[in-house]
Amino acid sequence: MNPLTSPLLTDLYQLNMIQAYLEHGDTETAVFEFFVRKLPARRGFLMAAGLEQALEFLEHFRFTDEEIDWLAGTERFNQDLLDELADFRFTGDVHAMPEGRIFFTNEPILRVTAPLPQAQLMETRLINLLHFQSLIASKAARMVLAAPGKLLVDFGLRRAHGAEAGLLAARASYIAGFAGTATMLAEHDFGIPIYGTMAHSFVQAYDSETAAFESFARARPNNLTLLIDTYDTEAGARRAVALAPELATRGIKVRAVRLDSGDMIALSKAVRRILDDGGLPDVAIFASGGLDEDNMREMLAAGAPIAGFGIGTSLTTSTDVAALDCAYKLQEYAGIARRKRSTGKATWPGRKQVWRRYGADGHMAGDILSLDSDHQAGEPLIEQVMKDGRHIKPSPSLADVRALAAHDLERLPQPLRDLDPQAHYHVEVADALKHLAAKVDERIAQSEGVA
Amino acid sequence: MNPLTSPLLTDLYQLNMIQAYLEHGDTETAVFEFFVRKLPARRGFLMAAGLEQALEFLEHFRFTDEEIDWLAGTERFNQDLLDELADFRFTGDVHAMPEGRIFFTNEPILRVTAPLPQAQLMETRLINLLHFQSLIASKAARMVLAAPGKLLVDFGLRRAHGAEAGLLAARASYIAGFAGTATMLAEHDFGIPIYGTMAHSFVQAYDSETAAFESFARARPNNLTLLIDTYDTEAGARRAVALAPELATRGIKVRAVRLDSGDMIALSKAVRRILDDGGLPDVAIFASGGLDEDNMREMLAAGAPIAGFGIGTSLTTSTDVAALDCAYKLQEYAGIARRKRSTGKATWPGRKQVWRRYGADGHMAGDILSLDSDHQAGEPLIEQVMKDGRHIKPSPSLADVRALAAHDLERLPQPLRDLDPQAHYHVEVADALKHLAAKVDERIAQSEGVA
Repeated sequence: MNPLTSPLLTDLYQLNMIQAYLEHGDTETAVFEFFVRKLPARRGFLMAAGLEQALEFLEHFRFTDEEIDWLAGTERFNQDLLDELADFRFTGDVHAMPEGRIFFTNEPILRVTAPLPQAQLMETRLINLLHFQSLIASKAARMVLAAPGKLLVDFGLRRAHGAEAGLLAARASYIAGFAGTATMLAEHDFGIPIYGTMAHSFVQAYDSETAAFESFARARPNNLTLLIDTYDTEAGARRAVALAPELATRGIKVRAVRLDSGDMIALSKAVRRILDDGGLPDVAIFASGGLDEDNMREMLAAGAPIAGFGIGTSLTTSTDVAALDCAYKLQEYAGIARRKRSTGKATWPGRKQVWRRYGADGHMAGDILSLDSDHQAGEPLIEQVMKDGRHIKPSPSLADVRALAAHDLERLPQPLRDLDPQAHYHVEVADALKHLAAKVDERIAQSEGVA
Repeated sequence: MNPLTSPLLTDLYQLNMIQAYLEHGDTETAVFEFFVRKLPARRGFLMAAGLEQALEFLEHFRFTDEEIDWLAGTERFNQDLLDELADFRFTGDVHAMPEGRIFFTNEPILRVTAPLPQAQLMETRLINLLHFQSLIASKAARMVLAAPGKLLVDFGLRRAHGAEAGLLAARASYIAGFAGTATMLAEHDFGIPIYGTMAHSFVQAYDSETAAFESFARARPNNLTLLIDTYDTEAGARRAVALAPELATRGIKVRAVRLDSGDMIALSKAVRRILDDGGLPDVAIFASGGLDEDNMREMLAAGAPIAGFGIGTSLTTSTDVAALDCAYKLQEYAGIARRKRSTGKATWPGRKQVWRRYGADGHMAGDILSLDSDHQAGEPLIEQVMKDGRHIKPSPSLADVRALAAHDLERLPQPLRDLDPQAHYHVEVADALKHLAAKVDERIAQSEGVA
């Protein structure tokens, strides 16, 4: 079985609840929305990603016979539920913000409209997919803003949280503007450009660094990048310079050197001088090792002559903010708006739309969160993407998603482009939505006989 | 294709290097070790996990015809490499610390001994598997220490980084002493006990909280836990009390109530009073929502009458420390010890063993890191687990792994049991290992003609 597609990749309580819904006949239309409650520290905006995988999940959701038998064997569920699950398909509608869009708190990036048991059963994995890629796209966007014009490559598969995280982090960072990834499967599955050089173990396996460089150059004559910090970075650079003429006689050109440790500002300048003095002004310097948006910005501000960065752990685990405070909440059931009121976790009820206005300079000038039916000024960001359980149009290509992300990043207001955002973006709640929330509160109070 | 088992789940540079190794005839025996370089903030120890998945990966590693064709189509690799990969099997030996063991910096928890191209090609996914589960087991162990005797349950699938992270976080936290998880697939795949109640959306879907509780009780009469904070926690507790007599007439017993928001210390005490005054002294209080080891410890220290905790995001993403500074490094090749000397990343060369001594009180009293051949006093922690690419004995059961973890946590010195460790555990480097490192440095310096 492939754990990535098993419907058992869910919380037990989903099946508990669905059994109760079915027994009680609670199968009317429910509307759930996925949104982020609060921006984490140092985040002025977020970037939507993961919709494509979410839609695939919905479209292909089904239990195998083995899974139904296993569920029966647990003796936790009644036969009605098992029969229902055996034939279970998602037949609902989905509205969403396209991938690559910038979004803010309380703005839904996905809305599911489906019979209650269906919409409920999708919760866990939908959150799992949308949360992670949006988390990583948002982190990667910071790196793109911190190192404008530089070649950024995802090196983070090894410390990503498992296989799927590594693969989807490559996708999410590519959406946000990375040039590519080192992960081969990301090229295979998504056509994302891949990059790769050599590891320290390669250098160590030879009796000398020069012998390692020669062997690697022979085997990989194109796009040759030499890793020069295994023993001593400046000595490594001098060895690359010494080797270059001989390689040139064989038609092999050193394209870049990679630094992976030490004081990157001082070392990159020293290596630049060694390369220039050695007649290799075209050889680029590529940096990796413990990078994040802060130290990249610092290096570039200090004039480090670095053309590209390989970024690993901080990207694929979003180290400083490893999770977003997001939720998938019931906003309407059986035609009646609903709302959670738990302390600090209250939600806006009903089906919603987000309207974005732009200033004369083209920058985003504020959003309005409204009921879907309440037309406001601006660009509506949420569109229908699935009807009756099927995509209603082909998904955009990754190239198109990347272009939308780049366009949204260009339109981001200046104070939000800083790694420490200098302002809060204004998201206004439309009056009709506020009225609806008050009405829902009134109804809850009345039905329980408490104020 | 299942991305969790594809050999393309690797970095491009691995194949680049292997092509060079094969061209150059570098196929002698290599020894790589996986270890953590540095303890992160607030961590006094780590717990090993992930070995079982690592061994499965090694044993089943192979390319499909489709993958070989795809690699050929990229035109990046020569025919010799493609032929080699088509028949590629891992035939090496593995030595490791058992899962559940406590370990410290520079102590290898895995050693691979195999022809260089094989050992190299396994790097990315081995790190990916060992890093994540060890990260989560180490985080979960802190929670176990912070809430002794409490029922701890993993609720974190939704915000884990993808599917595999969610599944393996359930496994790693169970190893460390959690009672179970909400993730159904973890029961299916690993036999881990699962737990589940109801969500806020369930309560919201009904016209009143009482109606929701009644419906849920009818459908799930056993092990009934009611979520009482959707609208107002104390009112929810009073409704549970009011409902209990009627449920009792139908033989249904309320087992627990769950709080998911608000001031847990005050609310749990208020709810306890309401339950006790309402004749429900046996109904347990279960807490969830934004929990971590620090706020659990705080609640318990303040006397919050909470019997169990459902812990989500902070566990499955290890939020405060989302990654460990770990590495898989070449320590020997063709019978000669190797060592990386990059600034801040120097490694100890050779095949190593870890010896652990215990004090008269049974607590761990210090480790010695030595060459494998250098017998020291104490318990050797590293044992052979794979020979010629095959398990040499059945893997221990999860129950046995859990027991070892519990035993190691009992033996942890008192100053390391605090959430802010009050001491560093002593790991001594044996003299012979220091001598070998000096000899390797000398050899590198001589071979390059630099000091």
